[in-house]
Amino acid sequence: MGVADEQVHQSGSGWSPVAVDDNLSLMSIGFLLASPDDAVIWRGPKKNGMIRQFLSEVDWGSLDYLLVDTPPGTSDEHLSAATYLSQAGVTGAIIITTPQEVALLDVRKEIDFCRKVNVRILGVIENMAIFICPCCQKMSEIFPATTGGARQMCKELDVPYLGNLPLDPKLARLCDEGRDILTEMPSSPVVQALNGIVKDLIDLCENSD
Amino acid sequence: MGVADEQVHQSGSGWSPVAVDDNLSLMSIGFLLASPDDAVIWRGPKKNGMIRQFLSEVDWGSLDYLLVDTPPGTSDEHLSAATYLSQAGVTGAIIITTPQEVALLDVRKEIDFCRKVNVRILGVIENMAIFICPCCQKMSEIFPATTGGARQMCKELDVPYLGNLPLDPKLARLCDEGRDILTEMPSSPVVQALNGIVKDLIDLCENSD
Repeated sequence: MGVADEQVHQSGSGWSPVAVDDNLSLMSIGFLLASPDDAVIWRGPKKNGMIRQFLSEVDWGSLDYLLVDTPPGTSDEHLSAATYLSQAGVTGAIIITTPQEVALLDVRKEIDFCRKVNVRILGVIENMAIFICPCCQKMSEIFPATTGGARQMCKELDVPYLGNLPLDPKLARLCDEGRDILTEMPSSPVVQALNGIVKDLIDLCENSD
Repeated sequence: MGVADEQVHQSGSGWSPVAVDDNLSLMSIGFLLASPDDAVIWRGPKKNGMIRQFLSEVDWGSLDYLLVDTPPGTSDEHLSAATYLSQAGVTGAIIITTPQEVALLDVRKEIDFCRKVNVRILGVIENMAIFICPCCQKMSEIFPATTGGARQMCKELDVPYLGNLPLDPKLARLCDEGRDILTEMPSSPVVQALNGIVKDLIDLCENSD
């Protein structure tokens, strides 16, 4: 996001999140570390305490959307986010996968988790679906979808399939450099796919209110 | 590994691991689930208990190597594995990354973790380094190594760089199908790279005894 060197300030109304843009603010434990290389060696209870603080003590102001980016898995972080947000209400979960079976195995567990904790699944996005060769422009499957990929899994488990995102090395480079992909490569297939998915997600969220 | 449907048996001497091959056995919580889609919704203490059971109650017999595959991060799983194995002695950690800066950020934390818990770092392997286009055979960087990739990071942090692995869609397919890549595609660049890395690792382990 291009804000790696920013700092979080504490005021009377709580922590002020880091402003990325006019309409985007960010909070991360990364801002609280002395060095970006420092490991955060915490067992579950300490992680849960920090998640609660991020939800209750950050001065977010008025928000249209609060996105919580979790690690993969079905453990402390996911249970805490679902529990602490249950009274406020969670609109739903967006699940990200890659096409190969070994990734879908974990994603099926994540879908089972959402159902068990009563979090609606807004849909599944398939990332790194195809690679666009910079030499011949041919699109290749990176991870062959041996079992039909995310689309087939969504059909089986009856959850919405939101679409797939090609892997464009140029996108990865811009992200690494903290640059804005929407203004720098607006016509690329990956940004067009992303815009379509976001539009569908906004529709899903608005219809759920 | 092609053993997804196997079951773990309990005997007087503990759990019997699943035999993959004459010289390879495997233990996984996946074998203990009623369905492969079931989420394992456990907070830290329960995960720690299972890690301890896997280390103490599996009848491994005589082993040359015990590999513990952990999720990314520096939390319960990593602390428990390091703690429970500290008396037996851990030869070292093998760290896997991909080339882009956003992955290296997490890997730097993992290296800091190993140093703080006194686990030697055997080295870093860079996965998904290049993509071989099935159409034009041209090798492309998947994730541009904007900060020099794993090699540069290893130099900075003074840890061994073990090599990189290209991403071959055929390999991903064979893995998904549980087939043996060493016999089915022995001359592919990825298997040759893998063999070289494993040879170096065995040398490192033997010299550390």
